[in-house]
Amino acid sequence: MEESARKRLGEMFGKAGFERAFPGLELVDAAAGAASIRLRVTTPVQNINGALHGGAVAFLVDHAGTLAIITADRDGRAGVTTDLNLTYLAPGRADENVLARARVLKVGRTLAFVSVDVVRESDGTLLAQGRMTKFMGG
Amino acid sequence: MEESARKRLGEMFGKAGFERAFPGLELVDAAAGAASIRLRVTTPVQNINGALHGGAVAFLVDHAGTLAIITADRDGRAGVTTDLNLTYLAPGRADENVLARARVLKVGRTLAFVSVDVVRESDGTLLAQGRMTKFMGG
Amino acid sequence: MEESARKRLGEMFGKAGFERAFPGLELVDAAAGAASIRLRVTTPVQNINGALHGGAVAFLVDHAGTLAIITADRDGRAGVTTDLNLTYLAPGRADENVLARARVLKVGRTLAFVSVDVVRESDGTLLAQGRMTKFMGG
Amino acid sequence: MEESARKRLGEMFGKAGFERAFPGLELVDAAAGAASIRLRVTTPVQNINGALHGGAVAFLVDHAGTLAIITADRDGRAGVTTDLNLTYLAPGRADENVLARARVLKVGRTLAFVSVDVVRESDGTLLAQGRMTKFMGG
Repeated sequence: MEESARKRLGEMFGKAGFERAFPGLELVDAAAGAASIRLRVTTPVQNINGALHGGAVAFLVDHAGTLAIITADRDGRAGVTTDLNLTYLAPGRADENVLARARVLKVGRTLAFVSVDVVRESDGTLLAQGRMTKFMGG
Repeated sequence: MEESARKRLGEMFGKAGFERAFPGLELVDAAAGAASIRLRVTTPVQNINGALHGGAVAFLVDHAGTLAIITADRDGRAGVTTDLNLTYLAPGRADENVLARARVLKVGRTLAFVSVDVVRESDGTLLAQGRMTKFMGG
Repeated sequence: MEESARKRLGEMFGKAGFERAFPGLELVDAAAGAASIRLRVTTPVQNINGALHGGAVAFLVDHAGTLAIITADRDGRAGVTTDLNLTYLAPGRADENVLARARVLKVGRTLAFVSVDVVRESDGTLLAQGRMTKFMGG
Repeated sequence: MEESARKRLGEMFGKAGFERAFPGLELVDAAAGAASIRLRVTTPVQNINGALHGGAVAFLVDHAGTLAIITADRDGRAGVTTDLNLTYLAPGRADENVLARARVLKVGRTLAFVSVDVVRESDGTLLAQGRMTKFMGG
C-alpha cells in the first residue's frame, strides 16, 4: 500500500459523520485489495427485532468495500459508488460480533469492483454477501 | 390499510435503535402499497465529502420499502429482506431534504417486492433507485 | 434523436448473433430515452417448464435498456454494461407476448442508467423489473 | 448427491429450448453445492462487437447457479428465481472458452442462494460475477 492509500484510509476511517452511528466499529485489517472490519450488534444498529439492521449491513459492505479499493488503487482513491447489491442469508444477532470482509475483484483507471462477505465472527456463518461498483474518476 | 398494518407502521416507525442514526426522519405518507419518508442531510448521515452516505441511502430504501409493504400486506407484515440493490445517480447534498418514495411491485403470501426512488425534494432530481425483495413467511 | 442514434439503433437491432436466439423479436418503439421491444414466448426462449427463461428475460432488459440509452445519448453510444440486476415477479407463459419497456434514469458523459419493466402484453402484469448501469467511455 | 438430484440435473441440462441458443454448452462438474459449465464464445452468443453477449453471461450465471442448487437441495429442487444480479468486469472474447463456476451460499427449505464467477478458461481472468436467489417452495 502506498503512502497515499495509508493517508486516505486514515481519513476514511472514523471521520464520516455517519460512522458515528456504528459505535465500536473497528478496522481489523486493510491491505493489498482486501479489508476487514468488525462491528458488535449493539442497540444502536439493531432493528425492531433486535437483529442487525439491513441498512447497517449495507453500510458495512460499503465501508469495507471502499477500504479494500483504497488499498488496491494506485492513487489510494475511494471513488464514488454507482451500484451496490446485497443478499441477506441470516440475521446478525444481538450482542454478537460480525465481520465484513471485502476483496477487490478489479480496480481499473475508471471503475473498481469489490465483493464483500458479512459473517458471524464466532462461527464464520455467512450473514450477507454484497457487491459494489465504484466510478473512480474520468 | 387494515388496523393491523396501522399498528405495525407505528411499531416500525421510530422504534428501531438504528433509526436514531437518522435525526429528523419523517414519515410523509404510507398507504395502499406506497410510502414516502423525508430526511434532511445533516452531519450525522453525511460521508467525508459532506454528502448523504451511501449506507444511509440504503437505509432509506429499506425503510420506505418496508413501510410500503406493510400497507399492502393483508396482515400488515414487514417480512425479512432477502435482496436489496441500489443504483446511485447523484449525491444528496448537505442540508437539503431527500425523499424516499416506495411503491410496491407485488405482495404475495410468501414474497413481496418493492421499488424505491430517492429524490431531492426541492427539484425532484433522482439521486438513487433501489429494489428490495422480502420473504413474508412460509 | 440524432442521426447518429438512429444509425446505431439500426446497427443494434437484428445484428448481434445472440439476437437470433429470440425469433420474432420486434422493436416496438425507441425515442427520447425510452424503448420498447416485444417477444413471443415460443419454444426457443422457454425453460423446461415452458415459461420464458430467466436468461431470456435478462437479454430483454439488456436489449431494451441499451436501445433506450442510445436514443438518449448525444452521440448515440451504446456503452458497456457494468451492472445488471433483475427481480422476477411472475412467469412469462408459453405463446403469450411480453414487452420490455425501458426508461432512461440518467445519461451522462461517462455513465448511463436505465430501468426496465418486463410485462405481459395482454394485461400489463409486471413479470420482471431490472436496472442496468453502463460505462459510456472515458 | 441424491438420486433425485442426479435425475433433475439430467432433466435440466440440454432440455430447455433456450439452451439450444448456446451451442457446445458443456457440463463440466456438478456436485455438493458447486457446479461448473463451459461455453465457447461462438457467433451465436456474441454481441455486435464479437464479445460474449451480456444476456448470454446472465444465462450462464442462472444455469450454473441452478445446477449447483439442485446438487445441494435435499430433494434436488431447482426452485424459481426471485433475484439475479451481475457485475461485468471484462469481455469474453470471440472463440475463447469461458467457465461459469457456481457455489451455493445457502440452501434452506424455502430459499436458496448461490454465487457465480464467470472466468476466461485460459487464464482464469474474472469476466463477471453474479448472485441469484431462488424460492424453493412453500
